[in-house]
Amino acid sequence: MTAEIICVGTELLLGNIVNTNAAYLAQQLAALGITSYYQTVVGDNRERLLDALELAAKRSELIILSGGLGPTRDDLTKETVAEFCSKKLVTDEKSKKQIEAYFVARGIKPTKNNWKQAMVPEGCKVLENHNGTAPGIVVETKKNKFVLLPGPPEELRLMFEESVVPYLKGLSSDVIFSQTVKTCGLAESAVEDRLRDLIEGQTNPTIATYAKTGEVHVRVTAKAETPKEAQKLVKPVVKELKSRFGNDIYSTDDGVTLEKALADLLESAGLTISCAESCTGGLVSATLINVPGISELYKAGFVTYSNKAKRKLLGVKKGTLQKYGAVSSQTAEEMVRGLLAETKTDVGIAVTGIAGPDGGTSEKPVGLVYISCNVKGKITVKECHFQGTREKIRNASVAAALMLARRCVLEYLSKEILK
Amino acid sequence: MTAEIICVGTELLLGNIVNTNAAYLAQQLAALGITSYYQTVVGDNRERLLDALELAAKRSELIILSGGLGPTRDDLTKETVAEFCSKKLVTDEKSKKQIEAYFVARGIKPTKNNWKQAMVPEGCKVLENHNGTAPGIVVETKKNKFVLLPGPPEELRLMFEESVVPYLKGLSSDVIFSQTVKTCGLAESAVEDRLRDLIEGQTNPTIATYAKTGEVHVRVTAKAETPKEAQKLVKPVVKELKSRFGNDIYSTDDGVTLEKALADLLESAGLTISCAESCTGGLVSATLINVPGISELYKAGFVTYSNKAKRKLLGVKKGTLQKYGAVSSQTAEEMVRGLLAETKTDVGIAVTGIAGPDGGTSEKPVGLVYISCNVKGKITVKECHFQGTREKIRNASVAAALMLARRCVLEYLSKEILK
Repeated sequence: MTAEIICVGTELLLGNIVNTNAAYLAQQLAALGITSYYQTVVGDNRERLLDALELAAKRSELIILSGGLGPTRDDLTKETVAEFCSKKLVTDEKSKKQIEAYFVARGIKPTKNNWKQAMVPEGCKVLENHNGTAPGIVVETKKNKFVLLPGPPEELRLMFEESVVPYLKGLSSDVIFSQTVKTCGLAESAVEDRLRDLIEGQTNPTIATYAKTGEVHVRVTAKAETPKEAQKLVKPVVKELKSRFGNDIYSTDDGVTLEKALADLLESAGLTISCAESCTGGLVSATLINVPGISELYKAGFVTYSNKAKRKLLGVKKGTLQKYGAVSSQTAEEMVRGLLAETKTDVGIAVTGIAGPDGGTSEKPVGLVYISCNVKGKITVKECHFQGTREKIRNASVAAALMLARRCVLEYLSKEILK
Repeated sequence: MTAEIICVGTELLLGNIVNTNAAYLAQQLAALGITSYYQTVVGDNRERLLDALELAAKRSELIILSGGLGPTRDDLTKETVAEFCSKKLVTDEKSKKQIEAYFVARGIKPTKNNWKQAMVPEGCKVLENHNGTAPGIVVETKKNKFVLLPGPPEELRLMFEESVVPYLKGLSSDVIFSQTVKTCGLAESAVEDRLRDLIEGQTNPTIATYAKTGEVHVRVTAKAETPKEAQKLVKPVVKELKSRFGNDIYSTDDGVTLEKALADLLESAGLTISCAESCTGGLVSATLINVPGISELYKAGFVTYSNKAKRKLLGVKKGTLQKYGAVSSQTAEEMVRGLLAETKTDVGIAVTGIAGPDGGTSEKPVGLVYISCNVKGKITVKECHFQGTREKIRNASVAAALMLARRCVLEYLSKEILK
């Protein structure tokens, strides 16, 4: 069964809101093993919605619509789908009672246009809305199934999980399973180069690469009759990726970010961490603190943007700053040495660089960043060359800093084991 | 001229990423006065992209495509548009050189597939990419204009602003002028309520509100034959907004962010600043350091996530932490007092709160955040109650902290003038 998604709403066409419903519905369809080839956004306009329905009905069996079920005269999804399927609108008594109860519970008097929400195409299946007043609707014709959902994400999601998933599971037999192998520090083209043989022969599972800031994710997706069989198809491919990319992989778990991977590693090794930042200006700390519960591991951070702060707070020597400059491997080394002396943590990360747009020279161009890591006295400094805007350079620096810390900690742990 | 947007990418169809490009492009087109009736998402698939192009070319003059310009064999937007327009692909020497330079600067050897990005449809206009390697492309046919942009949002946005806006402005005879009045600390519904009379009667200029994290922007847009006439229409409305929102407005300049507004104010007053952060974990510093050239004003930052760090680095008293807790107005006050003692800056901002998802109690729930500001010894503490995810609470805290600092500095300056 193939599906497509039609999101109805002039606010989407004007860019006033981001279409998170399409992403949510797409993810849910993929998880159910339902292939979806198109997403369309169309305004609250009868003629254009009729055109979109006609096109979608030709190419897909299942059509999921979101939005346009509200009480105002703008909202015409239900009316237009009913017209397209040649169905009359009739009052659904159960919905009418629920709308009444919803308003009574909130001490509000419903306005006349609220009863419009209790009108449904005859013979349809009504989906209850436990987060709002507009019921959802399933209309079936000989060729198509139309699922109409309310636009507000919290209403749409609850209804999808409660009512649409069971309905769709009854229609399909295939299951999709996918796993993401997350790498950091490699270019997307380089990752693809090393996967060319696997990508060329792919049918099931399929392999796809996605570039994120400083990271490349490789997604392996299989289709089968049961979740177990699909997982069985994915497993050997993930194993092969692990052997090809080794320590450039920081996780194979969809829910694990780079900062979470580092936090988990630190936690399992019982190590604490602190940060000293110049050009990233607190972003490494802020990213680590994305991880809930990090307070056990993360002790303190310094934003030493000025030379004075580098000297005073981290003990960087005046001579080092004068001789090599604030952006140098020597300064990065002294920053991370001073950091551990100050915070008494096990691991320290320091970053100093030129994020631009000004401040670059031919010798030290914008994008030159030194990252250092100190694990119980053992210091590693990495020289990086990033390109792009100030924001991009800073984000790339954060990813590189977290990845360097991860590598240094892994190295430390492997030596500890050999001891 | 009518336009439509086609976003190409299997990751969009699978819901792996949210389509922020469509929202951005839609907003930009609306701001340029270009009507857009449809948005389509299609996978990296030649046949289906050809279908989408055929449909779009029939109903819209301008077609903006995003995605599928990368170096991998998945990426086929350029190839497919060239095929649809019956144009050959040729090497663009300038792009080739830029790609080469991009890799040389990073010390990486380009792989063979990178040169694919220098191939363009013959006779097209090439748009430079200052944030990546894939150039953008404009292909014109008798009936249509196709604008191809790279998928990564930071590349797409920069290219749109630098190259596409001037190109599109050249196509239309009408001129659009818009100005944004930026407020912070008000709810969108409250802003709209206070503008209801203006919004209801609007035709030219139009007024629209946009909710950002912690901020609400009001955009006033006018259409006219000349820039001067359009500006003349916008001016009295902006004046009216200024009188209604007063000091809740931090800027009426599109290019000025909240951090830039604060930095400009500090610079003009000759004041330096430092930050001490707990729940925001460095994000206030990192946001301030978004402003290029901030190093003259921003001196140092502390991320005092643990109680120990609050005591050691900022001199918060043990008794205060024990009696009132780390999340209290008393702790916020001591943090910002200790901060100025330590950094000798003129202005200090401190933040302490519960970002969640854990750590909340009935007395101190998740979302409770204390923000303090110290201007040369005069301390102001603000208690805030935010809602939502950890990320949302932290971002709202950052906006509130910058806004509080702005108000305290303004207050200080107004008193200085009276002296």
